[in-house]
Amino acid sequence: MTTDEKALKLHADLKGKLSTEAKYHVKTREDLSLAYTPGVAKPCVEIANNPEDVYKYTWKGNTVAVVSDGSAVLGLGNIGAKAAMPVMEGKAVLFKEFGNVNAVPICLDTQDPDEIVDTVVRISPGFGGINLEDISAPRCFEIENRLKEILDIPVFHDDQHGTAIVVLAGIINALKVVGKEKENCKVVVNGDGSAGIAIAKLLLKYGFKDVTICGLYGILSKDIKDLNWAQKEMAEVTNLSGQNGVLADAMKSADIFIGVSAPNIVSEEMVASMNKDAILFAMANPTPEIMPDLAKKAGARVVGTGRSDFPNQVNNVVAFPGIFKGALEGRAKQITEEMKLAAAHAIASLVPDSELNEDNILPEAFNPDVADVVSKAVKDNIK
Amino acid sequence: MTTDEKALKLHADLKGKLSTEAKYHVKTREDLSLAYTPGVAKPCVEIANNPEDVYKYTWKGNTVAVVSDGSAVLGLGNIGAKAAMPVMEGKAVLFKEFGNVNAVPICLDTQDPDEIVDTVVRISPGFGGINLEDISAPRCFEIENRLKEILDIPVFHDDQHGTAIVVLAGIINALKVVGKEKENCKVVVNGDGSAGIAIAKLLLKYGFKDVTICGLYGILSKDIKDLNWAQKEMAEVTNLSGQNGVLADAMKSADIFIGVSAPNIVSEEMVASMNKDAILFAMANPTPEIMPDLAKKAGARVVGTGRSDFPNQVNNVVAFPGIFKGALEGRAKQITEEMKLAAAHAIASLVPDSELNEDNILPEAFNPDVADVVSKAVKDNIK
Repeated sequence: MTTDEKALKLHADLKGKLSTEAKYHVKTREDLSLAYTPGVAKPCVEIANNPEDVYKYTWKGNTVAVVSDGSAVLGLGNIGAKAAMPVMEGKAVLFKEFGNVNAVPICLDTQDPDEIVDTVVRISPGFGGINLEDISAPRCFEIENRLKEILDIPVFHDDQHGTAIVVLAGIINALKVVGKEKENCKVVVNGDGSAGIAIAKLLLKYGFKDVTICGLYGILSKDIKDLNWAQKEMAEVTNLSGQNGVLADAMKSADIFIGVSAPNIVSEEMVASMNKDAILFAMANPTPEIMPDLAKKAGARVVGTGRSDFPNQVNNVVAFPGIFKGALEGRAKQITEEMKLAAAHAIASLVPDSELNEDNILPEAFNPDVADVVSKAVKDNIK
Repeated sequence: MTTDEKALKLHADLKGKLSTEAKYHVKTREDLSLAYTPGVAKPCVEIANNPEDVYKYTWKGNTVAVVSDGSAVLGLGNIGAKAAMPVMEGKAVLFKEFGNVNAVPICLDTQDPDEIVDTVVRISPGFGGINLEDISAPRCFEIENRLKEILDIPVFHDDQHGTAIVVLAGIINALKVVGKEKENCKVVVNGDGSAGIAIAKLLLKYGFKDVTICGLYGILSKDIKDLNWAQKEMAEVTNLSGQNGVLADAMKSADIFIGVSAPNIVSEEMVASMNKDAILFAMANPTPEIMPDLAKKAGARVVGTGRSDFPNQVNNVVAFPGIFKGALEGRAKQITEEMKLAAAHAIASLVPDSELNEDNILPEAFNPDVADVVSKAVKDNIK
């Protein structure tokens, strides 16, 4: 059977990869009187008197909602709420399996940003955090920002920040391998959607100076017409030399290429035009911007992809379970830039210098230490 | 320790009585590729092409949202969303323990009916049913009716219908015990909130002719001023003789008293004024409208309460898990009056005639057959 056939059979056999389970089994009248009426009235009254006690007596403190409107699901595009469910359930499974965090898939029957914000705010009392997922740009930026302003629980759009954090972790280690300094590197990010913009922002925050974003229009600059507000904002802080042109122009003399874009759009010539010891993260899925063997042949030194069948897989699963675990345990009200940088450093630290090489810059998804190391770093950086 | 102390300790120890669990454990790269990317894309595409396949490939078909706005929680009143969480979590536990149905507590940070309706509609794609809980009357009627019109999944306000179904089941058996016919009985329902009105409606649907509702104003009649729309509607179909007066007046020569009201408001004299072989369901919690021993002393033949420490406990847990189990398995779009009546008959049938007596008119909550018998009856009555 192909992966597709196996996956379909698995989903049909399970009818849902997730379940809710009672942590307290109700076998006697006394069980019933403690878990439900009349005993349950007591924790209710305690919470009514002191709302913070909701963390003490309910699942809120270890439970996130995985929220999507189905507008940008995987590489499938706008397939809607119901069709997004297998991904959100899968994400909830990963939250539990990798971070021991409860997660509930919530797929929304609306794609209006105001309605999404209102809905998430209204369902928030029972959740300790909100993981936004597969919401298209630039709506995702506005939705996340507004929710962060309104809510006192962490809100985290994983397609943006999870990806950016793992990319940064990989870059931190790749720079060690090639012996370059962030301040001297030219970075090209190809893709100006949620992931591309978040990656560029986090790299700037980390201390890169020379970052250029490319989109379908070519190099993002203030001269490009019809940009959305998020792209305009990025045009102010990237491409400081004001270069115009296409991706091939941007890549000349670049040190780092990060692709969150489309299959096979980077040629060997473009890689060859980059500086010596080039680092390429070609993360288009399932087919990268350039296949690793071609990139290496053209002179790249470190190549990462989104795939598990090549070295250096850039996989969000090393980030989000630990990030929420730490944020929830530390009762963070937000996931700040400091927490994101700490998470990236923690992920990078999981590959010790002695094991670091061209083909080993990121920890395995199944490294059993990942979630604990990441969650501790995040927790230690809560203000 | 008292029940309160034990319940508080239990809730503090568990920090949530419920968890989400992976039904599919992700231990290898292949596991990851089937439960998540790239394999998960396949069921997503199938659902995008045929939305009904969401029942085939996700947890929707066996999962309900337990939704409350915290406006009428137990006997505690309007304590809000966070304080309602222990009850909704408890309900979710009962769904799983008694019906093997997944349930997610959703407590809403709004008490505006329009906003509640909008929110529930928007989160509905991932749920197979909506159990409304602890929402105050008359808002609960409007919210449920509107949701039923909009959604193609079952919507069921358990405080109304679950209670009404179990009351009817008890009445069916109590009538056998006392040897009376429904057509000849005068019924008094004390309480005109969600439960009282739903009970009156279901009794009428079942075939009772003479039902009178009482509220704080006394006997509900067309002469009472300032009724809400739901009370006005009931004034049209109950108290057909147009009696005015107080509860004591209504109870004279009544055959059945059903209290969903307040502690100790029925006196021995009032019971004594009822017809011979009176049936009383005194369900105010934790203290009934009249204690069973006093009611019996005053001449009642069958007495039920909401409590587990007296005979004939009227407990919704014999209804809602099986009702949703049946509705979900049969992919019902609504829970109809026929399904409710079938559920009441099924519950009543669990006490065989040979075991039926004054102190045994309803099955035990822990009777292992309840959910299956109820779910089968419900499923068989889906149109």
